[in-house]
Amino acid sequence: MDGQNEPLLLRADENGVARLTLNRPKAFNSLSRDLLTALEQEVDRIAADSTTRVVIVAGNGKAFCAGHDLKEMGEDLREAPIRALFDQCSRIMVKLTRLPQPVIARVHGIATAAGCQLVAACDLAVCTEDSRFAVSGVKYGLFCSTPMVALSRNLPRKPAMEMLLTGDFIDAREALRLGLVNRVVPAEALDAEIAALTARLLDKSPRVLALGKRAFYRQLELGLEEAYAFTTDVIVENALGRDFAAGLDAFRSKRAPVWPEDDA
Amino acid sequence: MDGQNEPLLLRADENGVARLTLNRPKAFNSLSRDLLTALEQEVDRIAADSTTRVVIVAGNGKAFCAGHDLKEMGEDLREAPIRALFDQCSRIMVKLTRLPQPVIARVHGIATAAGCQLVAACDLAVCTEDSRFAVSGVKYGLFCSTPMVALSRNLPRKPAMEMLLTGDFIDAREALRLGLVNRVVPAEALDAEIAALTARLLDKSPRVLALGKRAFYRQLELGLEEAYAFTTDVIVENALGRDFAAGLDAFRSKRAPVWPEDDA
Amino acid sequence: MDGQNEPLLLRADENGVARLTLNRPKAFNSLSRDLLTALEQEVDRIAADSTTRVVIVAGNGKAFCAGHDLKEMGEDLREAPIRALFDQCSRIMVKLTRLPQPVIARVHGIATAAGCQLVAACDLAVCTEDSRFAVSGVKYGLFCSTPMVALSRNLPRKPAMEMLLTGDFIDAREALRLGLVNRVVPAEALDAEIAALTARLLDKSPRVLALGKRAFYRQLELGLEEAYAFTTDVIVENALGRDFAAGLDAFRSKRAPVWPEDDA
Repeated sequence: MDGQNEPLLLRADENGVARLTLNRPKAFNSLSRDLLTALEQEVDRIAADSTTRVVIVAGNGKAFCAGHDLKEMGEDLREAPIRALFDQCSRIMVKLTRLPQPVIARVHGIATAAGCQLVAACDLAVCTEDSRFAVSGVKYGLFCSTPMVALSRNLPRKPAMEMLLTGDFIDAREALRLGLVNRVVPAEALDAEIAALTARLLDKSPRVLALGKRAFYRQLELGLEEAYAFTTDVIVENALGRDFAAGLDAFRSKRAPVWPEDDA
Repeated sequence: MDGQNEPLLLRADENGVARLTLNRPKAFNSLSRDLLTALEQEVDRIAADSTTRVVIVAGNGKAFCAGHDLKEMGEDLREAPIRALFDQCSRIMVKLTRLPQPVIARVHGIATAAGCQLVAACDLAVCTEDSRFAVSGVKYGLFCSTPMVALSRNLPRKPAMEMLLTGDFIDAREALRLGLVNRVVPAEALDAEIAALTARLLDKSPRVLALGKRAFYRQLELGLEEAYAFTTDVIVENALGRDFAAGLDAFRSKRAPVWPEDDA
Repeated sequence: MDGQNEPLLLRADENGVARLTLNRPKAFNSLSRDLLTALEQEVDRIAADSTTRVVIVAGNGKAFCAGHDLKEMGEDLREAPIRALFDQCSRIMVKLTRLPQPVIARVHGIATAAGCQLVAACDLAVCTEDSRFAVSGVKYGLFCSTPMVALSRNLPRKPAMEMLLTGDFIDAREALRLGLVNRVVPAEALDAEIAALTARLLDKSPRVLALGKRAFYRQLELGLEEAYAFTTDVIVENALGRDFAAGLDAFRSKRAPVWPEDDA
């Protein structure tokens, strides 16, 4: 709660898709401690819930997310609460990457500082044409050092550095060009585009998406030969399993695959 | 052979350029075990053959390469043959990177799964306007975990993830935008473009291209200071050798360099 | 000096901005030993000078920088001087990255070989529309192995490889597309654009820019979890310091921040 009756984070589940909506619209969905805690709890729940197939992260109101809540943060600048705040935020970003489900950022309006980090930390991102992105902490004397981790793994080095040093916004087209988002659409087409992308994930085997996502992030941190050795093990195990057997059946019969039930 | 009289892999050598053409056009050049074995043999031969200066990888018929041969793979899903298949495929991809010669993918039609991996694993790639690329294994329950190694080292993270999770095609323009290919040309201009690019490699010293290619992939895996320490050693040795002496002569005389004979 | 009365490297300081201008215009600012030594000295001075807030690297005359001075290099091809030359050049490139101040390359005309490396090694780069970039050493039998370190950390893999193997130029638009420069402007707008970008850095806390820049390059070399652990420490320390306190004050008062004096 946020001094209101509304929960800080809304969760709506439909057909295996969990939509998490940051719900502090008056504060541009800035990530208060309570909102972060609510977000971490839902991410933890989803990690253990095999009925959830795709996760969407969205924001209520005019903005996607304006980053940390500077007002709240400024109320107690001692080390313990500050450390706890950033530990939690970084932990959530890593957990999004570790979730077995694909995570799509649904972006509109502004995504700044930890809000921009949240976009970068999701596996995929779709935004409206009027979206704008910045890692703006430097303007307030707080370099976006943790957002930088996700940002610099999405964008080329010089544009990432420019964003970080200046704190200035880039627009949606530039975000697309630089690799921060996958698609840009008119605001009125955002949910349809998210639904279309989600549909392309829902017809896959959730186990296979999970093993692929996990391998993706792991192999990125390995040298070329190690990465091949690791992913060769992954694909061999995958090829020996039930999902590929079902996929082959479908391939031979020229019909859509029917994935086996989870751990039948 | 493939139940026909045609070899599965064609090799044509001209002026130091070895063109390897995948030759299973009816199967969209899918990589059967025999085709992979033929490909590995030629790659091994080329590695030891200093008269070959540039390698081109092409496909016969309507497609560049449709990846693994699912039909053949499905005939025996025990661990030993599956392991052998992917071990060999990964080994070939690494060997392309280790070849002393530059390798250019000549792409038309579709390049899917291990076929898309083959494009990504080559040093350079030129494709026709009608080319399309996908890592489509996820559609059949087999995540493109090994193709992902090459793909994610060519493309930004989010577009690579989208291709892997959805299995959907990108077109030639998008492949160019994302860094998967170097050039896109009309189909009728493909061979001329490949020839023009090849000519830009043939006028260089093959020893220097070899040392540079080797250093390129190695330094990518090092931290910044290590990478400078390593490449400083490489460039010093290069500067002390016969090729740079010949290049300097040419520079001073304002004429094209004549590279020394190999190990005279 | 270069057989003239002009210094090889000009330094102009204004309002905390140090502009270093390579000043061998007749030699297209090629990096002679004396010019490199002058450059290293200024970089070392700037590293220790907290009154310098931003560094600009520029070239006098028709070109930004044509790389090493092949004529001078060819005069003594023994190991000791060659080793000393490349050791110094690589050391300077690393030092630019280690400088606490942001470094902007101001590029016009050609930037080739170590000149292209210099652009890539700066944190940011702005160039004129007529700028052209190449790593051309391969044409003279000397692969741009050290420039490759910076280049391949700015550009996608295949375009970087093409530049290195062919030695061919890319134009300013392509440099922007590939991530080698941040902005391309008409020649007559270059200094205004540099001034505008510099202004976006001068209104930030220099201490915060320094800690952010240092963390940027360091976290790039870490795995995801390590990078978050490291940058979480950095942002916590930053949040507990005087600059963020000043930034918060400004945020609350809705005015521009006034950063505390250096180590008052």
